[in-house]
Amino acid sequence: MKFIKIQKGDRRLHAVLDGETVEVIDASPQNPWKRTGEKFKLSDGKLLAPIEHPGKMLALALNYGSHLHGAQRPSRPEPFYKNWNSIVGPGVPIILPKDVGKVDMEAELVVVMGKQANNVSESDALKYVLGYTCGNDVSAREWQGGPTADKQWWRAKSSDTFGPIGPSIVTDLDPSKMTILGRVNGKEGQRCITNEMIFNVPQAISFISRYVTLNPGDLIWTGTSGSTPQLKAGDTTEVEIAGIGVLSNPVKSA
Amino acid sequence: MKFIKIQKGDRRLHAVLDGETVEVIDASPQNPWKRTGEKFKLSDGKLLAPIEHPGKMLALALNYGSHLHGAQRPSRPEPFYKNWNSIVGPGVPIILPKDVGKVDMEAELVVVMGKQANNVSESDALKYVLGYTCGNDVSAREWQGGPTADKQWWRAKSSDTFGPIGPSIVTDLDPSKMTILGRVNGKEGQRCITNEMIFNVPQAISFISRYVTLNPGDLIWTGTSGSTPQLKAGDTTEVEIAGIGVLSNPVKSA
Repeated sequence: MKFIKIQKGDRRLHAVLDGETVEVIDASPQNPWKRTGEKFKLSDGKLLAPIEHPGKMLALALNYGSHLHGAQRPSRPEPFYKNWNSIVGPGVPIILPKDVGKVDMEAELVVVMGKQANNVSESDALKYVLGYTCGNDVSAREWQGGPTADKQWWRAKSSDTFGPIGPSIVTDLDPSKMTILGRVNGKEGQRCITNEMIFNVPQAISFISRYVTLNPGDLIWTGTSGSTPQLKAGDTTEVEIAGIGVLSNPVKSA
Repeated sequence: MKFIKIQKGDRRLHAVLDGETVEVIDASPQNPWKRTGEKFKLSDGKLLAPIEHPGKMLALALNYGSHLHGAQRPSRPEPFYKNWNSIVGPGVPIILPKDVGKVDMEAELVVVMGKQANNVSESDALKYVLGYTCGNDVSAREWQGGPTADKQWWRAKSSDTFGPIGPSIVTDLDPSKMTILGRVNGKEGQRCITNEMIFNVPQAISFISRYVTLNPGDLIWTGTSGSTPQLKAGDTTEVEIAGIGVLSNPVKSA
């Protein structure tokens, strides 16, 4: 099943996508929903972020060996918070703040929670997942680390527009077998397979849920791989995961 | 004006409080609301957190000179995120996770946003504020700092129940002239006046809003003073700010 959120005229609609056919559903997919029978062509609407206002988002730092760059390999999942003010949908510009310094893209698999999860086991964790989408964990490196870093990553990872997600939420995928690609202006800068994660999706959900209750619609960003491409105004970013689609966003200056 | 949220029977109601008289309003106070005419005595209900699900919460690290304890004085506001899973209301237990180590209370003034704020000036900032409440920024010190610290403060500051707020939201206070008291089992452990903040409320709102758009109902925790009292199961915490009230919570083990 493939869920989207789509703007048609003035309406912002949750829907299921079958090929090029959109069918409107009556609620967001992390809630009980049913088909309304209203159908239209995908090209007659404009895709939005599939979840525009998640209750919370946790993202994993240092979750691929290829991204450690000398940092110590973590002994437990290392989440941080992103906030929903950062979320934008496909095609919406990533805005570089005036004083931001170096900004990178980070291509990631994003997990969408489907049920409330409190202290769940690793073996049960995937039962609490609704599906998966693509994410670009845009990161301001001078605010994140080094001599001018902030104490915590509040704006490094969550400035407005620093969290593109989409284009769809897809159920019934195996989160250990996905290939994630990151491109800038069509040139591949990141490639990994999700079985390279240091902590896999069930381990991350189980660990987080021991301390922080997860709710339907919460998002878990699962980390990025390798060296992350730097962005400048005028660039176009793409995150691609087979079965989910391509998330593309232009980059602009404030 | 004093806003509360209160449970009466099975209903969770937003209300204004006048002396001991509760009058129900038809929406949360950060949204357009009006009085319903339904009134009852405060003692006939049970106070809840005045905002149970804020869109986001930013909290200021190192915002009182007396709390620096050798850390460098910050050159700009140093926010971090707390998440709403941590929020509990008056009287609800703070639960210490099994493996948590040392946990302290932190008595704080919490600002409740009333309007969307994007890149607002310091001189305009208070126009975007709805009011103020008391908060206890419960903090797990071994997850926050030292050799066993997490990379970021995701569970140190936001484990479930680590964010008591209340008992009311009060408008028309001067955020530079409040006395904040923190007590454990009736014994005063923290006392400060809000004019001791390194970055005052307008400075914090203005700075944050340059990067992260603030929305109605978002909360800004403004930092804690001095040495923070350690908590153990069986304790009772109190945060008191004159004009707002006393926020009291018991402490329990998981």
